[in-house]
Amino acid sequence: MKTTTPLIAAAMLAGLTLASPAFGEDTLYKQLGGYDSIAALTDAFLTKAGQDKMLKRFFVGHSTGSLAKIRQLIVDFICAKSGGPCIYTGRPMVEAHTGLKITNADWDESNEIFGIVLKALKVDKDLQKKVEAFVGSLKGEIVGK
Amino acid sequence: MKTTTPLIAAAMLAGLTLASPAFGEDTLYKQLGGYDSIAALTDAFLTKAGQDKMLKRFFVGHSTGSLAKIRQLIVDFICAKSGGPCIYTGRPMVEAHTGLKITNADWDESNEIFGIVLKALKVDKDLQKKVEAFVGSLKGEIVGK
Amino acid sequence: MKTTTPLIAAAMLAGLTLASPAFGEDTLYKQLGGYDSIAALTDAFLTKAGQDKMLKRFFVGHSTGSLAKIRQLIVDFICAKSGGPCIYTGRPMVEAHTGLKITNADWDESNEIFGIVLKALKVDKDLQKKVEAFVGSLKGEIVGK
Amino acid sequence: MKTTTPLIAAAMLAGLTLASPAFGEDTLYKQLGGYDSIAALTDAFLTKAGQDKMLKRFFVGHSTGSLAKIRQLIVDFICAKSGGPCIYTGRPMVEAHTGLKITNADWDESNEIFGIVLKALKVDKDLQKKVEAFVGSLKGEIVGK
Repeated sequence: MKTTTPLIAAAMLAGLTLASPAFGEDTLYKQLGGYDSIAALTDAFLTKAGQDKMLKRFFVGHSTGSLAKIRQLIVDFICAKSGGPCIYTGRPMVEAHTGLKITNADWDESNEIFGIVLKALKVDKDLQKKVEAFVGSLKGEIVGK
Repeated sequence: MKTTTPLIAAAMLAGLTLASPAFGEDTLYKQLGGYDSIAALTDAFLTKAGQDKMLKRFFVGHSTGSLAKIRQLIVDFICAKSGGPCIYTGRPMVEAHTGLKITNADWDESNEIFGIVLKALKVDKDLQKKVEAFVGSLKGEIVGK
Repeated sequence: MKTTTPLIAAAMLAGLTLASPAFGEDTLYKQLGGYDSIAALTDAFLTKAGQDKMLKRFFVGHSTGSLAKIRQLIVDFICAKSGGPCIYTGRPMVEAHTGLKITNADWDESNEIFGIVLKALKVDKDLQKKVEAFVGSLKGEIVGK
Repeated sequence: MKTTTPLIAAAMLAGLTLASPAFGEDTLYKQLGGYDSIAALTDAFLTKAGQDKMLKRFFVGHSTGSLAKIRQLIVDFICAKSGGPCIYTGRPMVEAHTGLKITNADWDESNEIFGIVLKALKVDKDLQKKVEAFVGSLKGEIVGK
């Protein structure tokens, strides 16, 4: 019997990236500066969102350990979907957001914060557009569930 | 090499109950009416708490699946600690509540709701006192973290 | 905005049971003797399976805590699917077994152990048939993945 | 009331690294080449360990999804402890290994594989020593539990 190695199994799980690079182009993961940049981006976003009048309600009911898990899952998700060597092991997007009743206004506020963070981290305009397209593609799985 | 069976391993994990019955007395689990009663009690409590002005903030940021996990962990915890055949597999109480900043006022409100629920489910006075003593013993691990 | 209470959300998650009772009949959960019987059944099964030459390979790589989680998820699953007040919060059956390469021989061995356990716990013949039909209905989601 | 932001909470959780760099020196995370190198190292190690006669027993009872979680937790652990921007959200080392009955021989085999992998990935001798010292410091929490 052939044994699938953990590595191959993991690779199969990782699946296709949401944002496949054009031929000869770097992955979005690389363009963003790799893991450290994605982690910094996520932390800056969560810090701002956790203090935002409209969005902070989503963070209040979570323990420090629960917030750490959410943070790590977001980093893993972005890393995995942008072509980095992470595996996202959380629930599918729809399931993870069902019941949260995230509104269009929440989504817009969240995107505004994200834009500010991308700018603060000096992500260039072209790349910012790609990242925003990537985030935008998730809206249907997150809002109104 | 001696193999510890999963059952024995599980039993070791379950540990001592918080509320050991006096010699010859039923466990608190049995006195409460077993698992079904504990599940009904937990569901009634969570329903009321989720609608309560002061407490609902703890539930807003959780998806339906996340709330289901919290519910099941609470049932498992009460079941295990009262002497029932459940294993609590969640994080230790202090860790699970650190960062939630649960206040004394939250705790009192929560106990008031719990009392109403015990009464509505026709738990008799003596038993209610035992349950409240059991819940009371957890305060130090939950409030002000 | 109407708020779905945690209880209702949990109930929705619990979904339909695999083994709906005929009109006027008790649920399989009740017929089995409720939670305590299901827990005893699961523990007896896991103890035997963990010592079985053919099946013990599935348990070797799990820590005590990991085995406790598996045990609790099995109890929750049987409880929920047989009509009891539990919520199964684990991964879907197929996902939970993909990669385990459980063979038909493993499945048969497992069923034989399960039959011995049902007999030892004095489950009557009629009920044993219902339980085995319930377990049998899961084979396609568990074997050969 | 002062609100601890998710970022700060996460940072507090991350705690001290096992391998603090000397003054002015890069973290072990940086010396290793950051996240991508740690992920490659972990994948190469797990692939070899999963095929190893002595060690493969630890991987047999895990689904593809379970292996992916283990892989991701190992990467997160090494990243976090070596000074990288990851948070390890798994159970403490002792708890995660209790019941596995990892022997000294397993540990030695595992270290031999790890050494081969470090060499294959062209980690230089000095750095290899540091990494092995770091891994060695974990032995007491992993073996014989």
